[in-house]
Amino acid sequence: MWPPKGKFECPQGALLRILIRIRQFMKIIQIIKEIQDLSFNLKQEGKTIGFVPTMGFLHEGHVRLVRAAKLECDVTVVSIFVNPAQFCPGEDFDKYPRDEKKDLCILEKESVDIVFIPETREMYPDQSNTFVETEGSLIENLCGRTRPGHFKGVTTIVAKLLNVVLPDVAYFGQKDAQQAIVITRMIKDLNFPVKMRVMPIVREMDGLAMSSRNIYLLPEEREQATSINKALSIAEKMFYNGENESSVIKKTIIEQLNNNKNLKIDYVEIVDTERLEPVSTIETDVIIAIAAVVGETRLIDNVIVRSS
Amino acid sequence: MWPPKGKFECPQGALLRILIRIRQFMKIIQIIKEIQDLSFNLKQEGKTIGFVPTMGFLHEGHVRLVRAAKLECDVTVVSIFVNPAQFCPGEDFDKYPRDEKKDLCILEKESVDIVFIPETREMYPDQSNTFVETEGSLIENLCGRTRPGHFKGVTTIVAKLLNVVLPDVAYFGQKDAQQAIVITRMIKDLNFPVKMRVMPIVREMDGLAMSSRNIYLLPEEREQATSINKALSIAEKMFYNGENESSVIKKTIIEQLNNNKNLKIDYVEIVDTERLEPVSTIETDVIIAIAAVVGETRLIDNVIVRSS
Repeated sequence: MWPPKGKFECPQGALLRILIRIRQFMKIIQIIKEIQDLSFNLKQEGKTIGFVPTMGFLHEGHVRLVRAAKLECDVTVVSIFVNPAQFCPGEDFDKYPRDEKKDLCILEKESVDIVFIPETREMYPDQSNTFVETEGSLIENLCGRTRPGHFKGVTTIVAKLLNVVLPDVAYFGQKDAQQAIVITRMIKDLNFPVKMRVMPIVREMDGLAMSSRNIYLLPEEREQATSINKALSIAEKMFYNGENESSVIKKTIIEQLNNNKNLKIDYVEIVDTERLEPVSTIETDVIIAIAAVVGETRLIDNVIVRSS
Repeated sequence: MWPPKGKFECPQGALLRILIRIRQFMKIIQIIKEIQDLSFNLKQEGKTIGFVPTMGFLHEGHVRLVRAAKLECDVTVVSIFVNPAQFCPGEDFDKYPRDEKKDLCILEKESVDIVFIPETREMYPDQSNTFVETEGSLIENLCGRTRPGHFKGVTTIVAKLLNVVLPDVAYFGQKDAQQAIVITRMIKDLNFPVKMRVMPIVREMDGLAMSSRNIYLLPEEREQATSINKALSIAEKMFYNGENESSVIKKTIIEQLNNNKNLKIDYVEIVDTERLEPVSTIETDVIIAIAAVVGETRLIDNVIVRSS
């Protein structure tokens, strides 16, 4: 369990002390104009900015992104914004887990320089009507199939945040592999002056990919959720032992997953890393990707296997 | 006729001399990475960048934008790129007038600092698949009705150019009123750190709005084309003389235009300046806008009337 529970529970007195320290060391900004001006000035001073966009409820996966930013850049900016535009109707926007105090404690401990926590109205004023959208196979396959409009919401908010934070480098996690590839495409296509870093998946002790949504899982579901990462490990081993027929690998994954009564498969796909199109025989680098609903919680995970 | 013809015809010897001067004084850049790095360095030096995006075949309308940029900013960048994405099927992309030599002569004379002239492949590499689109009434009315996809092409290329040139201020002409409003919306919605300036329409001696497409007009059509600006002047006078019923003003405009046998009306609209939605009674600032095809040339023009 990360972070150790007691350490971040922030009882009243400790919280006050931490908030005072935060005021001194970590800037918390809610207004676009304010952070945009600050970033502009930092850049004029020759400082490089590393940016970690998040939806909050931070876990060690996020912390690894922060640490990578701190290693590579002069100034680290983290945004916390649960982006309504990337939730489809009927999805978990309202109940998406939020804990800003704990998030700030974590970021302060990591010596983050600036946290940007805008209100929804600040990011989407009333008349807002412009969207960024990647078209084609990149958003049609995998999660794009069951989450229509999701990636349009993602590319739009990331484009906005890049213009607001003006980073030199942006950090994303490999857990959301399709998101990382779609954003990489967007940055390239729209010529954003930003480098993209995709960091490896961080896992719990039992291999479950870290996700803010893991908190939804009931104990029995939590146990069954690990069948996703276990199935991926088996698939990976099959490939490195010589199996390169997607259908054979997928069949094994599906059998593994179907052993769990609380788990419903959304997709099991083996796709190339460029266009995210399904491959029948694995001859290039591919992503083996799973989405499944465990209880009522939709989880995703993936592994990249290298063909050479 | 602007510019005086003889002055910019660039015979061989003069051209050579000008090219040598251009090399010394005006940077001509074709590669995104090159201008992006240059702009980045300029900004780090604290220089402000004024940007005039054009499709070339420059006329005095463009020159006025350049002069505004030069007045307001430390460095002036002009781009010349005939953007295929904003031409609809069957439109004049292939025959759109081009004269890069003359354009460079004009820009050099205006002491422009940097000209960005990319190849199509540089702006749209093969896999390019991300688009910026403003939705709703802004792109559905006026030109959006007869030019489907046009504004998607415009917002996408402008977003790309803003990321490439990194300007502090971008300059557009009021002649393309809808374009200016759509781009203003985009800059606001996507939080581009760029100020938008919209400069007044520049007209020929007889009132015809300057446009690169005026070159298409045969002598008789050229004469009839002025009925567009004449109709707008009449409409403007009607309003300031107390007429505020759109239908009455539009009727007068249509009658004026229909007197010309080579002219076919595309639209005559009176719309508010915020959402570009038709108004029946003029109570706020409005744009009176005309699009008409004269011979085979589509021309647009407009006038803003102030309600107070």
